[in-house]
Amino acid sequence: EDDNEDKAREESVTFAGFKVKAVINENARQKYLFLHCKKNDEDAVVLLEKTPFDSSMTDQILSDNTKIRETLQNDIYHTYTAFLPANLNGVKATVICPASEKHIKKYTEQESFVIQETAELYTKVTLPYLEKHSFSTQWVYNILEKKKEADRIVFENSDPDTGFILLPDMKWDGKDLNSLYLQAIVHKHGLKSVRDLNKSHLPLLNNILEEGADVIDQEYGIPKSKLRIYIHYQPSYYHLHVHFNHINLESPGFDADRAHLLVDVIENIEMNDSYYQDKTLVYRVREQDELYKLYQDEGYF
Amino acid sequence: EDDNEDKAREESVTFAGFKVKAVINENARQKYLFLHCKKNDEDAVVLLEKTPFDSSMTDQILSDNTKIRETLQNDIYHTYTAFLPANLNGVKATVICPASEKHIKKYTEQESFVIQETAELYTKVTLPYLEKHSFSTQWVYNILEKKKEADRIVFENSDPDTGFILLPDMKWDGKDLNSLYLQAIVHKHGLKSVRDLNKSHLPLLNNILEEGADVIDQEYGIPKSKLRIYIHYQPSYYHLHVHFNHINLESPGFDADRAHLLVDVIENIEMNDSYYQDKTLVYRVREQDELYKLYQDEGYF
Repeated sequence: EDDNEDKAREESVTFAGFKVKAVINENARQKYLFLHCKKNDEDAVVLLEKTPFDSSMTDQILSDNTKIRETLQNDIYHTYTAFLPANLNGVKATVICPASEKHIKKYTEQESFVIQETAELYTKVTLPYLEKHSFSTQWVYNILEKKKEADRIVFENSDPDTGFILLPDMKWDGKDLNSLYLQAIVHKHGLKSVRDLNKSHLPLLNNILEEGADVIDQEYGIPKSKLRIYIHYQPSYYHLHVHFNHINLESPGFDADRAHLLVDVIENIEMNDSYYQDKTLVYRVREQDELYKLYQDEGYF
Repeated sequence: EDDNEDKAREESVTFAGFKVKAVINENARQKYLFLHCKKNDEDAVVLLEKTPFDSSMTDQILSDNTKIRETLQNDIYHTYTAFLPANLNGVKATVICPASEKHIKKYTEQESFVIQETAELYTKVTLPYLEKHSFSTQWVYNILEKKKEADRIVFENSDPDTGFILLPDMKWDGKDLNSLYLQAIVHKHGLKSVRDLNKSHLPLLNNILEEGADVIDQEYGIPKSKLRIYIHYQPSYYHLHVHFNHINLESPGFDADRAHLLVDVIENIEMNDSYYQDKTLVYRVREQDELYKLYQDEGYF
């Protein structure tokens, strides 16, 4: 009891003063809840997410400090609502205050749509968009020219046509092997996406597949049978790159409407030189993506 | 304070007496933790999962009953650990006690492996396994012959070669449209998986794609641009069926190493009659899957 009172004083800051205006996003699987609030007269975004269990604290989780209330009992199966000691059941809260319109938009759930991009639609809608914007990939050239992040390079094949640089993805902490995430970035310029690939790129793709997997086995002890190796379409930047993930990493980027397995890409091109120029490619867009708007203007939706 | 004491008495059952033997599974994204325990001399499995936020209780979540402790502050961004009132932060606990060896195995994380199944390996390892076991699909025939679940049928095309039955998947509650999940089961017998598909099946596949999407639009108001329509390889049962999901449903079954988009299947076959007989197909197996053991015996791993 004393402990609890001490803690209460120590944590005397509260959410008092925040008025909830709207739930802008929520996810039952990942257990998060994003709120648009007002504090005094300012807009605020409050991001709440349940924390993972701390598996080093199991003895304290299953102790007499955890009260349980039975909700169901059937034979050997019992379900309970359990109330863990507060210090074991924190919630991560991020507050952005004052929040701009842009912040609120950023964290508001966006509607998603499926596009079936035929070869014709690629030429008519997607390609002009890519060419018009000519997204800057200077930061990629900085990596390839070793002006930036040179110390992070895990492997390089320096051939200008069939070579690449392999380095850890920013999303990976570089330690937890179950969430291993590396990217191979090709040296060759001008390959925007899988749409540009044909038989002439098979040596490059095979190098990435073979050398990439070998290096990951040597450096991290993760064999090829534990790796997911794939290309995104649409990619997040338009300079060809390949993702390497540990099979245990749960990533929305591995959805079947975005991830194209590198072995499939290679085999499809071997089967048909113009596979990725001819093929309808399916992907998901969100309502704030410019491609969504362009397809809408085109009368696709 | 009084409230808390009342609650403590009411919930006086605790986890006292449980001794943790091992963490058998955990997931930081979904926030669950599975434990193998001993209670007295019996084995027990304890499944703990954080609960989603109750978005109808936002005013109480952001109240002065939620204490917050600042962990970081940078410009307009603040992060906190928040301690919600216990009644808003329950944990779902399932206890199986006494638990058998089988229960423990069922909830223990299994190692996963990637198989690249070439046409040759299919013939040599996978097909003999399918033929030897000739998995019973009597329950599927019961549905197709309307001996079971006839009242659940949403649509039928009764043609024996190009027809199918569309019905809600068992995993769907039939209400929440964001998690819409239906299955189309083909009337034709003997189509085990995509491996068996060729040009002769295009009318069947096109019927499923077009009629399935149309019916879902009419019955549920979900247009095709909100649907994921795909076939699993390996499937969970070896009678051809197609999955229809709302794009907002987060499902591990939509991973790129399991889900084959129906539009891709159709177009690949149009391009090459024997695409699915020739193609290397990539999928994930778990260590307790018989296919994993057979590929291991074959020297694949």
